[in-house]
Amino acid sequence: MPFTMSQAVLPVFEIGLNALIVVLDKAAAHATAKKIDPSVVLGWRLAPDMFALTRQVQVTSDQAKNGAARLAGIEPPKFEDNETSIDQLKERLTKTVAFLKTLDSKAIDASADREITFPLGSAKGQMKGGDYLNHFVLPNFYFHLTAAYACARACGVDLGKRDFLGAIPIKRI
Amino acid sequence: MPFTMSQAVLPVFEIGLNALIVVLDKAAAHATAKKIDPSVVLGWRLAPDMFALTRQVQVTSDQAKNGAARLAGIEPPKFEDNETSIDQLKERLTKTVAFLKTLDSKAIDASADREITFPLGSAKGQMKGGDYLNHFVLPNFYFHLTAAYACARACGVDLGKRDFLGAIPIKRI
Repeated sequence: MPFTMSQAVLPVFEIGLNALIVVLDKAAAHATAKKIDPSVVLGWRLAPDMFALTRQVQVTSDQAKNGAARLAGIEPPKFEDNETSIDQLKERLTKTVAFLKTLDSKAIDASADREITFPLGSAKGQMKGGDYLNHFVLPNFYFHLTAAYACARACGVDLGKRDFLGAIPIKRI
Repeated sequence: MPFTMSQAVLPVFEIGLNALIVVLDKAAAHATAKKIDPSVVLGWRLAPDMFALTRQVQVTSDQAKNGAARLAGIEPPKFEDNETSIDQLKERLTKTVAFLKTLDSKAIDASADREITFPLGSAKGQMKGGDYLNHFVLPNFYFHLTAAYACARACGVDLGKRDFLGAIPIKRI
């Protein structure tokens, strides 16, 4: 089986987003057990000038849906960014996974040399599809996924590396 | 140009490791300017049960050299994990980049279906090369790269997303 771009995108995002849903579940249970207001956890930041947990989750979702959609050659859907609870954030991640399932893997596989133009702050960025995947979509996705996970862990949620990796196809021997 | 595994590994790690060298340079300059003992920065943790910055940098290097070497079908070199200064950590990252340049990209490209066995705590893990890259090597690499970056940023080092992404092949239009 050859190595394809869709393999490097669709199952990767699905596993990562589902792992983040479990992290949020554990964060909710921790907040309840420790009588912590969930908004304290959702407002946690790794540094004063980094996004709080809520925004980290929203941007993880955005990197997945926007990156995958652009590689598939379609306009990504816009989500409202109006989540204020752990349940709403979990719903957004579920909606993101559902959207990924609608994408055409063959279109993603064929995008290695296609020039992709995407918003970049107030300007635009342009990269070939293969470079866009390797050097923009994946690092940005993992940056926000890791930051979200670390915000929860900094709040005392009992998490290990397996919670970050999620349900990966590994055989333990 | 088809999408290859070596493209998803070698330039990705080189850019990421070089970006981390710049982050460490900025951390050193920040510590000097603010009269902070560099060991405070190197000992910073995002959570009490997460690795400190020094170990995050070492493990980022390990994920890159071990993952790429195993995909290329060779035994990865062992590094001593004895770094105690920012300069020594930068040297280790430079050494990691130099090692990556010795790897055979064609061997990496041919590894998608090869079963790869690797240490996993006190046991071993086994995955097909393509899965190993997508679901183990890249998420682990980015996890520790992001954690290292966030430790520096939590210490007040003036960093933005561009410092994390590094010298990526992007055209700003």
